[in-house]
Amino acid sequence: MTRILVVGGNAAGMTAASRAKRLDPSLEVTILEASSRIAYSICGLPYFLSGLVRDLSELELFTPESLMNERGIEARVQCRVVELQASQRKIVVEHVRSGQRDTLGYDKLLVATGYRPITPDVVGAHLNGVFTASRLGDADAIASWLSSKRPRRAVLVGGGYVGLEVAEAMVARGLSVTLVEAATQIFSTLDPDMAKLVEDELSLHGVQVMTNRHVRRIAAKGDGDVDAVELSTGSLRIPAELVFVDVGVVPSVELAENAGVELGPTGAIQVNDRLETNLPGVYAAGNCAETHHLVSGRPSLIPLGTVAAKQGRIAGENLAGRHSRFIGAVGTSIVKVFDIVAAKTGLNLREAERDGFSAVESKILAPARAHYFGGAPASVKVIAERDSGRLLGAQIVGSAEAAAVIDVAATALTAGMTVRDAAQLDLAYAPPAGALWNPLLVAMNTLAREL
Amino acid sequence: MTRILVVGGNAAGMTAASRAKRLDPSLEVTILEASSRIAYSICGLPYFLSGLVRDLSELELFTPESLMNERGIEARVQCRVVELQASQRKIVVEHVRSGQRDTLGYDKLLVATGYRPITPDVVGAHLNGVFTASRLGDADAIASWLSSKRPRRAVLVGGGYVGLEVAEAMVARGLSVTLVEAATQIFSTLDPDMAKLVEDELSLHGVQVMTNRHVRRIAAKGDGDVDAVELSTGSLRIPAELVFVDVGVVPSVELAENAGVELGPTGAIQVNDRLETNLPGVYAAGNCAETHHLVSGRPSLIPLGTVAAKQGRIAGENLAGRHSRFIGAVGTSIVKVFDIVAAKTGLNLREAERDGFSAVESKILAPARAHYFGGAPASVKVIAERDSGRLLGAQIVGSAEAAAVIDVAATALTAGMTVRDAAQLDLAYAPPAGALWNPLLVAMNTLAREL
Repeated sequence: MTRILVVGGNAAGMTAASRAKRLDPSLEVTILEASSRIAYSICGLPYFLSGLVRDLSELELFTPESLMNERGIEARVQCRVVELQASQRKIVVEHVRSGQRDTLGYDKLLVATGYRPITPDVVGAHLNGVFTASRLGDADAIASWLSSKRPRRAVLVGGGYVGLEVAEAMVARGLSVTLVEAATQIFSTLDPDMAKLVEDELSLHGVQVMTNRHVRRIAAKGDGDVDAVELSTGSLRIPAELVFVDVGVVPSVELAENAGVELGPTGAIQVNDRLETNLPGVYAAGNCAETHHLVSGRPSLIPLGTVAAKQGRIAGENLAGRHSRFIGAVGTSIVKVFDIVAAKTGLNLREAERDGFSAVESKILAPARAHYFGGAPASVKVIAERDSGRLLGAQIVGSAEAAAVIDVAATALTAGMTVRDAAQLDLAYAPPAGALWNPLLVAMNTLAREL
Repeated sequence: MTRILVVGGNAAGMTAASRAKRLDPSLEVTILEASSRIAYSICGLPYFLSGLVRDLSELELFTPESLMNERGIEARVQCRVVELQASQRKIVVEHVRSGQRDTLGYDKLLVATGYRPITPDVVGAHLNGVFTASRLGDADAIASWLSSKRPRRAVLVGGGYVGLEVAEAMVARGLSVTLVEAATQIFSTLDPDMAKLVEDELSLHGVQVMTNRHVRRIAAKGDGDVDAVELSTGSLRIPAELVFVDVGVVPSVELAENAGVELGPTGAIQVNDRLETNLPGVYAAGNCAETHHLVSGRPSLIPLGTVAAKQGRIAGENLAGRHSRFIGAVGTSIVKVFDIVAAKTGLNLREAERDGFSAVESKILAPARAHYFGGAPASVKVIAERDSGRLLGAQIVGSAEAAAVIDVAATALTAGMTVRDAAQLDLAYAPPAGALWNPLLVAMNTLAREL
């Protein structure tokens, strides 16, 4: 019997295990997960905090029991893999509660250890009431804090996807919210002009947005609970009974690195298009692994569940003996912030320049639907390479329906289209469903004039 | 001075005239339009009938006066071009009201004469109270009939896009509505199983749908107004005070054909990728012209405003002396019918087989959003070529947001993607905005297993 071990029971690991077992039911597939839950949607955390998701179990697709019953896959939770002995095809597992260690052999192994949030290097970063989010347990901890301590004021340190969604959730819970961002803009995935639209939306809903401010320390009350966030600029002190930190993530690669798995230039695990590492029988997928970026052609870090799940699917096929290739990704993301949705695909202007492209951009403001259907205007930016006219990226901030068009840009990027060809895309129109000239096409036509 | 004449003042003609004048303001651009209005959105007709659009002028983007003031383009309305003398680069124009004829010379001419609706070859097809829709004046006529005659019962003959939207408008106006379709399904752009979902939605909202029924004649009352639609099967007689006919359209090619312009196999005007006809200086664009179908590789008829406007834009650039190419189209369409939206791109199964493809299909039912956001399920069908795995088409029936994904399929079709590559498209996900696995990707993965 062929034995497959999967280290990590979330998007990439779960998808890989399920796919491998489905393709070859004779495989013995075991998932090893350090936390106490598998197969959960961490993306749902803000909606649990806001109260839209009533019970955390709604975010769990499987328990170890249901996974065994429905898919014949064993999942061992609270089992941390502490050592990979690749030359002997063995791992050492530590049971988190007992500290007891076991050794397990494998024929093929998938490293799907994901990422962990960066903790800021300031005094007070580990106080009671200071949270990050990467595990479903974090949602429990924040929810408990909210109900037991009844905080009135929250400070969010950093403004990425989850931070923005948590800001909305905190406002929904009645907290007064301040967002402190070290950079000159929040949401660095967008260009500054597009991120400004998101900042405006936050302000409109009462979130105080402070950019270009560094946290000096997080102060405690006498009982050790968080009391305030102190800034290095202007000696400002922002009182808060809850602090949420979202200043980025790093791939969790220690296990693999210690075993001799090669890391790439991004610091994540280097894989080929079959998602194999340099060690025989060892694969990597998800947010601990690099992703081939289809626009830059370079290895990149794209810490998103969508990419992790797709890599997991391909890894699962290869674990089952197929020869499947992961084509890569373009880094498409979307986030709802109060009444607007912000979306991005490919490279933003800063990223395009960093990657050596001579980039040109165009931004338009366009209604999403026929005027008598009252479509809200959307800002659409497209970026192309000056000489070739090749599309490099797109950003949209507007209504949910306007932002959904980002997927069209993502598809055009994947196909390597030029702006001129993309401007002729045969997109659908009916008065209730859009505009005769889709805003993305208008932006493409505008950009084509700049080339 | 270079003189440009544009025959037809709607999507293709208006866009071409505007684009040419914008690129070269020294051009003298004149639009000749047989009806009394230019630059209107015939797609808005159903929403005028339903009352959502209060005034017909809301559907007019320009009047001849505003077109001259804002863009420096002359538009002569109620001027029918009755003859094209291509060898002398002249046309003969008849003033509709006076019958007076003029001769005008041109350097370049665009035929943008559009289509006209097919009138069924039955007795009574021209009775008072029997309508079709292709001109904005039709909306006026139907609205007048509705307010003066106060019909209680309407019969729609044929079930295409406009027919379905008019059905909804008639229900909104309180009429009892019967849809009579000669084929075994309504909305032939969809496969029968997908069209059935639209039929069910119509039935759910009180529209009686009768397929596989032929109209034998339309009967009149003593005063000459329409009284009933009589069917050839079962001698059924359906009383109606208003009949709307939507049994298809034909390209309006008489002017061009009589002048020696070559027609293609579809019966529409044959054009190259610069939208030139066989006659020097004579271009054609819009619904009177053929469209290169990017999936079948064949000339096709795609009577949609989106394609007409894009052809018009390219024609306008070439009228102004550029060398622009129209890449072709994939036939993407979308229609809202009560609470669902139906969308299609590329070839349906019947069309794929007609065009010689060995086609395989897959259909899935998938929620559009995370379950805690309550996404309604959507039916997604994708069709591919068996051996190559090349994507041939997609159909979606579901919520507006689910159906909008048709544009992603359209883009993948334009790029010639295989189902396996399209299954890996990096599409956006956030709980309020979609599913981790976009339903289109789920359908692609399901189809990939059939190949």
